[in-house]
Amino acid sequence: MADLKNDRFLRALLRKPVDVTPVWMMRQAGRYLPEYRATRKKAGSFMDLCRSPELACEVTLQPLDRYPLDAAILFSDILTIPDAMGLGLKFNTGEGPTFERPVRSARDVAALGVIDPNAELKYVTDAVSVIRKALNGRVPLIGFSGSPWTLATYMVEGSSSKEYSKVKGMMFDQPKLMHQLLDTLAQSVIQYLNAQIKAGAQAVMVFDTWGGVLTSRDYREFSLQYMTQIVDGLINENEGQPVPSILFTKGGGAWLEDMALSKCNALGVDWTIDIGEARNRVGDKVALQGNMDPCILYASPERIREEVATILASYGKGEGHVFNLGHGIHPAINPEHVAAFINAVHEFSAQYH
Amino acid sequence: MADLKNDRFLRALLRKPVDVTPVWMMRQAGRYLPEYRATRKKAGSFMDLCRSPELACEVTLQPLDRYPLDAAILFSDILTIPDAMGLGLKFNTGEGPTFERPVRSARDVAALGVIDPNAELKYVTDAVSVIRKALNGRVPLIGFSGSPWTLATYMVEGSSSKEYSKVKGMMFDQPKLMHQLLDTLAQSVIQYLNAQIKAGAQAVMVFDTWGGVLTSRDYREFSLQYMTQIVDGLINENEGQPVPSILFTKGGGAWLEDMALSKCNALGVDWTIDIGEARNRVGDKVALQGNMDPCILYASPERIREEVATILASYGKGEGHVFNLGHGIHPAINPEHVAAFINAVHEFSAQYH
Repeated sequence: MADLKNDRFLRALLRKPVDVTPVWMMRQAGRYLPEYRATRKKAGSFMDLCRSPELACEVTLQPLDRYPLDAAILFSDILTIPDAMGLGLKFNTGEGPTFERPVRSARDVAALGVIDPNAELKYVTDAVSVIRKALNGRVPLIGFSGSPWTLATYMVEGSSSKEYSKVKGMMFDQPKLMHQLLDTLAQSVIQYLNAQIKAGAQAVMVFDTWGGVLTSRDYREFSLQYMTQIVDGLINENEGQPVPSILFTKGGGAWLEDMALSKCNALGVDWTIDIGEARNRVGDKVALQGNMDPCILYASPERIREEVATILASYGKGEGHVFNLGHGIHPAINPEHVAAFINAVHEFSAQYH
Repeated sequence: MADLKNDRFLRALLRKPVDVTPVWMMRQAGRYLPEYRATRKKAGSFMDLCRSPELACEVTLQPLDRYPLDAAILFSDILTIPDAMGLGLKFNTGEGPTFERPVRSARDVAALGVIDPNAELKYVTDAVSVIRKALNGRVPLIGFSGSPWTLATYMVEGSSSKEYSKVKGMMFDQPKLMHQLLDTLAQSVIQYLNAQIKAGAQAVMVFDTWGGVLTSRDYREFSLQYMTQIVDGLINENEGQPVPSILFTKGGGAWLEDMALSKCNALGVDWTIDIGEARNRVGDKVALQGNMDPCILYASPERIREEVATILASYGKGEGHVFNLGHGIHPAINPEHVAAFINAVHEFSAQYH
């Protein structure tokens, strides 16, 4: 593998000094880019795009050709694991993901096995290898997975949900069954992320999109416990280099201290808490990634630059900050606004290092 | 007006001793009750139901006839103010509220005047009078309004939103215009709540459903500032009795200390933070109302009772707790589960008083 030419992102995750604050965006390879929409059209369905290592590589690299981003992230979906478990993932237009065979009973849970990423999910590890080769050391590549709780939410509900009545029903009334499901998922995520690391992923991120709908007690027991299990099971090193891990719970601002007790290297933070306050709370235990409101990208470039400056000032001087949005970029964003954002991070952050 | 036979709720809001913890539920007059669905059918549309003081009174009292609740809440909608401003509120089946004439430009904002609750919203104050009479002192009656930020969100988006791109676009790029809109709304909410108090509301609550989508900075500037203005403008007393006020921001757990600096009497708390921790943070500045996850009502009565016990223990001994759900009750809940919940609060809480 080629030597890494830009290691700011990995250094920041490991809380080492950098020249400027590294920056990337969740869903940076996505619908706001016309070139993404063209590749997506060529591919057919969204899952066809995920399943083609060459096309997944093409869209992964597109934002890097436009912007001086400091990391690439594997183009894939958070629901590949339940799909590999045979639940029948479908993306119906305007509806979000649905599963043809949702998990509702003890029998359904018992039928699920820990996935073998080298079989059902080989298209993902193949994509990682192809992308690493194509990157040729430009920036590091991030692998990722959904968190066990978030995967379980979709698997039990069968689709996106507003109320989470089915998954919470199982959690409240059949906690042992829910733990059995979450343990199978945590073991699967460990296998999956380690396979991505062996294929060349240089950092990994766990997305807990729905942990924020839980009480503090339930979050610790049903989400964070399994993310901690994952961090414990991860390969921490590959090709002689450390492979840092990032945990992100959307709406999890109240639990940063608990999350920092897992042995992860960094926490993703959404925009609802002040990043300087978050830094005070976690101290030197972990790096922080975030946390600009994705909606600011609808505003003028001047206003975007102002917001970048505010967040950098809030984090303050020193190591341990990866700049990012607090959630994925929206499809209607003007790509020129993204340029203003990314450039502002590098321009304004030198003074803090 | 008849003497109040049960003043637990008002005493708890004022942090005075009570025999057991008072309890009510957000949306307690609602679709989970078959008798509500029958009245709703008779009324015609949802807004027809809100606009009829007699039918609004009928549904307000229905849950009190089933359960030993410690408060009644006016049956109405949070969007009556923008409707009175002429925006054309519609409820289309399965879609949530929409406005025919959303607010998008400086001209649209300038065209809005502070509402006169004795004209356009007389049906609300009439409902308050009719309900107070029908209650005959059984329990206190709560009046309410949406918060300025939450009203603005619906008014600018024109409908429910996932991304808030339009309202945040106005906030980021035209902050002065947004402040003009929010100030008109805050003045209107003051008029509206004071009219409800004069008509007989014995406590008032401001629902900030969408403050939680903001950054801390934007929350203080665009939501909390205007709720504080409202608290300052409220009549604090009527018929020689204090009229306490409650502020509730869904997803606002991070900002309780800031909210407690307004001169409100109580804060509503959703289920994502521990109520004992919330109590430690606000000290004796305010009472707390909450905070059971509404989804627990899908679980078995035994599990519901367990959760009630956990929350009461978390709050601990002493004054200042009103038990409630952390958000409105869901339409699919079994009414018998509600009975288990309400009874458990009274049964288990005596030991803490």
